[in-house]
Amino acid sequence: MLSAVDHVGVAVEDIDAALAIYRGVLGMPLVHRETVSDQGVHAALLDVGDSHIELLQPLGPDTAVGRFLARRGPGLHHVAYRVESVQDTLDTLRAAGVRLIDERPRTGIRGSLVAFLHPSSTGGVLTEIVQH
Amino acid sequence: MLSAVDHVGVAVEDIDAALAIYRGVLGMPLVHRETVSDQGVHAALLDVGDSHIELLQPLGPDTAVGRFLARRGPGLHHVAYRVESVQDTLDTLRAAGVRLIDERPRTGIRGSLVAFLHPSSTGGVLTEIVQH
Repeated sequence: MLSAVDHVGVAVEDIDAALAIYRGVLGMPLVHRETVSDQGVHAALLDVGDSHIELLQPLGPDTAVGRFLARRGPGLHHVAYRVESVQDTLDTLRAAGVRLIDERPRTGIRGSLVAFLHPSSTGGVLTEIVQH
Repeated sequence: MLSAVDHVGVAVEDIDAALAIYRGVLGMPLVHRETVSDQGVHAALLDVGDSHIELLQPLGPDTAVGRFLARRGPGLHHVAYRVESVQDTLDTLRAAGVRLIDERPRTGIRGSLVAFLHPSSTGGVLTEIVQH
């Protein structure tokens, strides 16, 4: 059902300062930058093997990532798994009793289809599924 | 330098309840269980593509993961990257000014060599490097 860790999302205060660490020090190639208005973030994707690190700087304090930063500070925000079909996976998970944040796929970064599962059904981990 | 996301560590209160989610509902194969006394955890590794989810249940409240759970509740704990040589990577990162938790490699799960980097140098993310 889940074929890979697509990316790990990291909430940051300042995406350029974070890029100085992840690209400059850890040596991950930057492959994409995008402002995802729907999710209220500036985002940057860096390559690491077959996965990505997704840096997320909130567009303002009244966004999901802005509230996360205010509550918990910068750090690990979510994990995303690659799936063949977000819709089919949502149907399977819903039937298994998983609580969903998104009842249907929506557009994510780089035109992907994504949906979020509720942390209460995944051991406290905000979990995303992604179809490229 | 970092060749893949080796695993994502998830702090849990009850590893069997978490396995019911990650194996039973999300369908990840369980590939290893181990008590890592040095790190104060019961650990379980589940396969997802070329990476793993590492579930971590503390051996008691006075352990790193026990304190994490008391402070933040269950959820994402750390991210680990695969490297060819933990020692060489530590040398490179130290020279770049990265603050290290482990100055030299130590033994991790399944006989791997591991070291942790301090979150203050990695954007708030507890970061591990792993050599198999």
